[in-house]
Amino acid sequence: MPERVKRNERLAAMGRILTGSPNRIFTLSQFGDLFASAKSTVSEDILILSELFSEWGLGQVSTVSGAAGGVRFRPIPDPQRAREELERLSKRLCEPGRLLPGGYLYISDVICDPEAVDFMSAVIARDYYDSGVDFVLTMETKGIPLAMTTAQKLCVPLVIARRDSRVYEGSAVKISYASGAEGDKIETMALSRRAVKEGQRALIVDDFMKAGGTLKGMCDLMDEFNVTVVGVCVAIGTTQPEKKALNGVRALMEVGSLSPDGAHVYPTPWALGEKTENTKQNQLEETK
Amino acid sequence: MPERVKRNERLAAMGRILTGSPNRIFTLSQFGDLFASAKSTVSEDILILSELFSEWGLGQVSTVSGAAGGVRFRPIPDPQRAREELERLSKRLCEPGRLLPGGYLYISDVICDPEAVDFMSAVIARDYYDSGVDFVLTMETKGIPLAMTTAQKLCVPLVIARRDSRVYEGSAVKISYASGAEGDKIETMALSRRAVKEGQRALIVDDFMKAGGTLKGMCDLMDEFNVTVVGVCVAIGTTQPEKKALNGVRALMEVGSLSPDGAHVYPTPWALGEKTENTKQNQLEETK
Repeated sequence: MPERVKRNERLAAMGRILTGSPNRIFTLSQFGDLFASAKSTVSEDILILSELFSEWGLGQVSTVSGAAGGVRFRPIPDPQRAREELERLSKRLCEPGRLLPGGYLYISDVICDPEAVDFMSAVIARDYYDSGVDFVLTMETKGIPLAMTTAQKLCVPLVIARRDSRVYEGSAVKISYASGAEGDKIETMALSRRAVKEGQRALIVDDFMKAGGTLKGMCDLMDEFNVTVVGVCVAIGTTQPEKKALNGVRALMEVGSLSPDGAHVYPTPWALGEKTENTKQNQLEETK
Repeated sequence: MPERVKRNERLAAMGRILTGSPNRIFTLSQFGDLFASAKSTVSEDILILSELFSEWGLGQVSTVSGAAGGVRFRPIPDPQRAREELERLSKRLCEPGRLLPGGYLYISDVICDPEAVDFMSAVIARDYYDSGVDFVLTMETKGIPLAMTTAQKLCVPLVIARRDSRVYEGSAVKISYASGAEGDKIETMALSRRAVKEGQRALIVDDFMKAGGTLKGMCDLMDEFNVTVVGVCVAIGTTQPEKKALNGVRALMEVGSLSPDGAHVYPTPWALGEKTENTKQNQLEETK
């Protein structure tokens, strides 16, 4: 290791370390020690990196002041590129071959595609960096990849609710919830007691929402743990049924209609970063 | 955007782009166009970045020759740091509070911790970059975070086998397999027909292996699809039972014993990158 590290090298190494651990705060001393540089030099490096990342749409490098201060990276997507990517993903979901018997849409490949999931989670995380999220909650199975990558970006743990309690997860809280378009199917959901703590704040992430029963179930489950739900996000929502079990759910894309030629899928104003009016519909609340 | 981009900026931006899409090949022209630089300049940048990343243990930046050539990044962990991290994780799993009634070990928090999972998947991916892996397969539920991040590092899709077929995944292949220490419990596993293609190559990743029944089931499932299994990896294995349904499974850590004081968990020679003899035990094969 050289005694003094050149700016070239410091910037590239610092960029790699920061982007490898999104939303984690590194102190200036950590980088100072690593590079055998003065804190003032590290501060200059951060400023250069921050401007560079901003100019190139590579995410946000910023300093955090205070006792627990330092520097951190947030992979906030460039708005123009986010729009293009959301439109590309929507188009992919419109392919005619995706329609399954019974009027279902095949989405498993998209929600398990690492690059698509990485991008979608960056859009979701964008609005929750300053919400004091303690963990991301999802319900098994298909939402896990998206919830995992969202948790990674927020630098918080992932918590997975199960359909039933498991011997290898210890004592659990189990609830019943109504699912299906008519809310006429009763299912169960369980979560290990040690998975979360009273007073924490949860971001709920799932792959798909139709009537919203499962998402409402997750909110109820969080109530049992005295956990505050700060947001509920899904990759794909549907316009039908109009009445959802939960209002204020944010979807990246929406399925407007299904026809034999394929689905009509499009990015939502929220995902595109367009200002939406603060109507009652946008507030997270249970429908009565 | 400036007409000519300075080396400082090129290195940091290139580093960010490459590390953000592990194992994806970018052509020199892509960077040349982006930076308004000659290919020879980009080549010099790559060399600098490659040496820098290698020296600092930040992963591997390398050029790929041929028609589909270019430059790519592989997050291969620094051996010394990998050893420390594996030992830290093992220690975390030895905490007495993790023992559950019935002799189970609570691991859900570790296998859902984004930083732990990111690290573990980097160690697993390390040995499979040149194995021609087409997708990573796991069985729901707890292995998904690790399998997802492994797929992300290899730049291939994730495929999730389900306990049963689902209407929203189309026609499926369903098999029965024997699980449990005695192999006396029969369970089912299903996979959508469109999820994989004949002739592809799979890397199987899961969180935990005891007798190996589920992993053996996944191999059988791949047989049904005429897919070659190039490797089977788990986060945590157990020494007991000695007889496994499948040989050659690679575990990052092993549980040697459970006592009221906690589990005895340690990193395996494979995970530590130690050369192991090529015994029959290390070859991937079903036990008869």
